[in-house]
Amino acid sequence: MAEEVKVFGVWASPYSRRVELALKLKGVPYEYIEEDLSNKSPLLLKYNPIHEKVPVLLHNGKPIVESILILEYIDKTWKGYPILPEDPYERAMARFWSKFMDEKCMPAIWEACWIDEKEQEAFEHLKTLENALKGKFFGGETIGLVDIACNWLAFWVGVIQEVSEREVVNAEKFPILCKWIEEFINSSPVKESLPPRENLLAFFRARREFFSASVSASK
Amino acid sequence: MAEEVKVFGVWASPYSRRVELALKLKGVPYEYIEEDLSNKSPLLLKYNPIHEKVPVLLHNGKPIVESILILEYIDKTWKGYPILPEDPYERAMARFWSKFMDEKCMPAIWEACWIDEKEQEAFEHLKTLENALKGKFFGGETIGLVDIACNWLAFWVGVIQEVSEREVVNAEKFPILCKWIEEFINSSPVKESLPPRENLLAFFRARREFFSASVSASK
Repeated sequence: MAEEVKVFGVWASPYSRRVELALKLKGVPYEYIEEDLSNKSPLLLKYNPIHEKVPVLLHNGKPIVESILILEYIDKTWKGYPILPEDPYERAMARFWSKFMDEKCMPAIWEACWIDEKEQEAFEHLKTLENALKGKFFGGETIGLVDIACNWLAFWVGVIQEVSEREVVNAEKFPILCKWIEEFINSSPVKESLPPRENLLAFFRARREFFSASVSASK
Repeated sequence: MAEEVKVFGVWASPYSRRVELALKLKGVPYEYIEEDLSNKSPLLLKYNPIHEKVPVLLHNGKPIVESILILEYIDKTWKGYPILPEDPYERAMARFWSKFMDEKCMPAIWEACWIDEKEQEAFEHLKTLENALKGKFFGGETIGLVDIACNWLAFWVGVIQEVSEREVVNAEKFPILCKWIEEFINSSPVKESLPPRENLLAFFRARREFFSASVSASK
């Protein structure tokens, strides 16, 4: 029986792209379905009724939601390329840093990209993250869970900085992280899992005033 | 070589108690070290320098932090009693509901225990959770990840409600959840992993004004 593997995503979403990257690393063919978040499809609402968000991975009729949980599912389901390390302690650390990216780094960096007040916090989180990087990748010699979870930092942040005209992340402040960014975004299949840069630039340019105002208002 | 297994915790913390319960379910002997969060020990700061929080599990010199990640670590390290299901989809669902408890239910229920504004949100989350309970426990016939993650709902909420004189959770509104609460808190080794009820009552009574005011202020 042919496997059914579908990804419901949004092209500009780093969370959707995480799932696509993991499937590419595993060599699992999948069908991609673009969602319109301003007009969510009945299928998205059916498969993720609680959060109504992308990404959703549909595997033989069963929906799995939330990108990090999907990455864990993919790693457990398809053998071959390891996304999480096998050692329990290393696994715990990989989960710790992915969570740190989502819960600490992303909100602080996002805000620091638009306003000054969060710059110090973003700097400290990024230094902490940089100190955790011991090899070529967070996963060691190969791309693993933390690298995939950091795709937003590697690609989106540069685009957002270009739009907001602020420099939260640069090679002077974070030489090791910036070297990782280069390695990561130029490696295969990461390159093929990223949205076109020009489209992403246009996306953030069109929403620049909105993002800037909403971050300022939340302070 | 004898294994070193230490838990740094706080007696009134549901997060610490999760870790203790998981170790008891696995039959792993451990040493418990009570922390004073108003005067954190140098060891706590050394083992959890980023979040400076309990619980910390120290296993043969290696610290693991964040309760859900510790539960995953315990399940992977010690065989025998299964905390997570083996099936990848069931695993994803167990992780989903644990996350739902921490990120959605706990904040909404906590606030609804002190002020009216959050009652509807808490009600909806609890109904969603109740609908996910298909067997005797969330883990089926035995206590699993989601049951452990819901320890706060099973035991702490009743105490908090007694102090705040509000009833967010009761058998009329949530018959299935309340049946689960009974089963859960009366099963072994859950009973032995809970703090003394009178002490917990005194703890929340002493802080009643503070909690009530801080929840109101955040609205």
